[in-house]
Amino acid sequence: MSWVPVPEGCGFTLDNLPYGVFQPRSGGPRVGVAIGEQVLDLAAMWAGTPLGADLGTGSLNRFLRRGPREWAYVRREVRRMLETDDRRRFCERNLHRIDEVALLLPVEVADYVDFYASEAHATNLGRIFRPDVAEPLLPNWKHLPVGYHGRAGTVVPSGTPVRRPSGQRGPGDFGPSLKLDIEAEVGFVVGAPSTLGEPVGTGAFAEHVFGVVLVNDWSARDLQRWEYQPLGPFLGKSFATSVSPWVVPLAALEHARVPVPGQTDPEPLPYLAEKEPWGLDLQLEVLLNGRTVSRPPFRDTYWSPAQMLAHLTVNGASLRTGDLYASGTVSGAGPDQRGSLIELSWNGAEPLRLADGSTRTFLEDGDTVTVRATAPGPDGGRIGFGEVTGTVSA
Amino acid sequence: MSWVPVPEGCGFTLDNLPYGVFQPRSGGPRVGVAIGEQVLDLAAMWAGTPLGADLGTGSLNRFLRRGPREWAYVRREVRRMLETDDRRRFCERNLHRIDEVALLLPVEVADYVDFYASEAHATNLGRIFRPDVAEPLLPNWKHLPVGYHGRAGTVVPSGTPVRRPSGQRGPGDFGPSLKLDIEAEVGFVVGAPSTLGEPVGTGAFAEHVFGVVLVNDWSARDLQRWEYQPLGPFLGKSFATSVSPWVVPLAALEHARVPVPGQTDPEPLPYLAEKEPWGLDLQLEVLLNGRTVSRPPFRDTYWSPAQMLAHLTVNGASLRTGDLYASGTVSGAGPDQRGSLIELSWNGAEPLRLADGSTRTFLEDGDTVTVRATAPGPDGGRIGFGEVTGTVSA
Repeated sequence: MSWVPVPEGCGFTLDNLPYGVFQPRSGGPRVGVAIGEQVLDLAAMWAGTPLGADLGTGSLNRFLRRGPREWAYVRREVRRMLETDDRRRFCERNLHRIDEVALLLPVEVADYVDFYASEAHATNLGRIFRPDVAEPLLPNWKHLPVGYHGRAGTVVPSGTPVRRPSGQRGPGDFGPSLKLDIEAEVGFVVGAPSTLGEPVGTGAFAEHVFGVVLVNDWSARDLQRWEYQPLGPFLGKSFATSVSPWVVPLAALEHARVPVPGQTDPEPLPYLAEKEPWGLDLQLEVLLNGRTVSRPPFRDTYWSPAQMLAHLTVNGASLRTGDLYASGTVSGAGPDQRGSLIELSWNGAEPLRLADGSTRTFLEDGDTVTVRATAPGPDGGRIGFGEVTGTVSA
Repeated sequence: MSWVPVPEGCGFTLDNLPYGVFQPRSGGPRVGVAIGEQVLDLAAMWAGTPLGADLGTGSLNRFLRRGPREWAYVRREVRRMLETDDRRRFCERNLHRIDEVALLLPVEVADYVDFYASEAHATNLGRIFRPDVAEPLLPNWKHLPVGYHGRAGTVVPSGTPVRRPSGQRGPGDFGPSLKLDIEAEVGFVVGAPSTLGEPVGTGAFAEHVFGVVLVNDWSARDLQRWEYQPLGPFLGKSFATSVSPWVVPLAALEHARVPVPGQTDPEPLPYLAEKEPWGLDLQLEVLLNGRTVSRPPFRDTYWSPAQMLAHLTVNGASLRTGDLYASGTVSGAGPDQRGSLIELSWNGAEPLRLADGSTRTFLEDGDTVTVRATAPGPDGGRIGFGEVTGTVSA
């Protein structure tokens, strides 16, 4: 137990200690750790040291670059500070109420990669777009984690308004997207870089990946549909990707580890094989204008986070501090477990009925979408990821 | 004429003055301008000023962020220094022979986008992969500049060895790529950023784009072929993209401007229309192991650089200093104007005969590929782009 009060149901416990970047009312941005409804200013805790300088900046990157040993050291120290009374007075002076600070983008994103790792999601899209074909998955899907690069420069912090993008909706048809959608995803933040030419095996996952964020990869389905052949999504995605302000460290997710399901037909190639289970049992929740519309289970994802990383680097591509890779839309088998509106409304054919009596196929101006998640922690507790939210503007 | 000797045929003239980042034998990296066979240390020329601090770093980014007025001011000043004797003594102390310094990556790349703007290239690939279809271009190709995001973290400076990537070549088939290829391209470096949500029209091109580099976007055709459905190229491209060390400023290319060809069926949508001709008459040359194998003409490219930029941002995607976008493979209509081996060897069906009697379909270990280019300058002179080169290792 921490001496900082953690309200019942709050996921920012002593077993979690997620990292973010915040700006208090006075002073510049700095790295902090959330506990209960407050954030501890880590730059202040290590003031006057090189580590303090790395923590007193507008992103986690300089801290992340220090690597796993330093991540473990800081986590241990922060836990001790918040658990024992040794430095309580000093800590109390450097705690801020989260609702009184600005939460910024936690990471300066280097490269952003988006995968397509949920079998239910890929199957649903196959059924929607190729209804006449018996096998909804494309031939490569179970052989490799399909992925592509997105735009790092338009990854924005939770709360950033999302302007409805304009573009080509078809031949000669230009205007605002009529099929603006969400994608509820889980993102992985790379902390320690790797060397060009040297693949990062599944076993080295925890040496490079620091932690986990929630991602909403806003998508304009009409723009995407017209543009994506043969080089993949571009403007249908690049206008905005929202991420949650808190990065939950892998170290907080030991109790959330689960084996990935299936993977027997075909067996993964050796470079994708895993000794340890590295799926994660995150329970996502998607809210539209404050009402829950879906509960996607990340544990059902076909490809594990370590497999995605191994695939991403098997050609020798190097990792940089700040690389972000996301799972792609998380969907489960049930109709109430789908992580996108194109699935929830079956591409508009089955409008979603909201609590206020209105219906939705895709997003309307003014709609607010929130994705949140929790995972199992020690002693039956829950690790909270906070939320990623955004409101559509015209 | 400059008092610095510029040998006959050297494209680094007083009308060019390209920017790069170099490291002399002693001292850190800094920004320089090439003239003849030498490079002028700009950090030294502005030592002790804020501009000098921005020029005394390992990339052009801080200088680029200053925007078009400052670019014009520095260009004017450098030209005066190299043209008149006013500061000759001081300049001479800060000139280095190019062959005695290390040339580094000129730009810290923010986002990297690759287009597909050459009609001849897209047509050739359509004929190779869809020989039974009458129309080789996909339906969207003449409506919009097709493009996608590549990996910014593996953009490497000219001269970096390129390790042959391994990956999935087909179902269950893992190993080194057997179809390693080149793509001779022209790249555009964004200097001044733009605001999220605000498209950059074709008329604002020169307010954001600083200059031009040569690009070799190495490609593993077998990996790409198996992975690219439905989200586009990923590992087939992300192992390495080489760029030339010198960025030729737009200001040096006034005489190289030409209208783009065609674009009547269909007419471009209003956001892609251009008042001024902004095609560029770059003559590329591709050399394999020192022998010319192709001369791709950039002036025949269907989509102009300003149209690519307008398309990239029409959905509101913002630009950052250091964004790099490339044209895609530059190919002309003639068989000796093709910018990739997949076209030159017609996907291996027509091996290329080299000067030493050997043949090539795709690249072999030890092969060195060089792309160079020139463009028209004032008074019948030629603006040189230098070269981008790389050797394949096993």
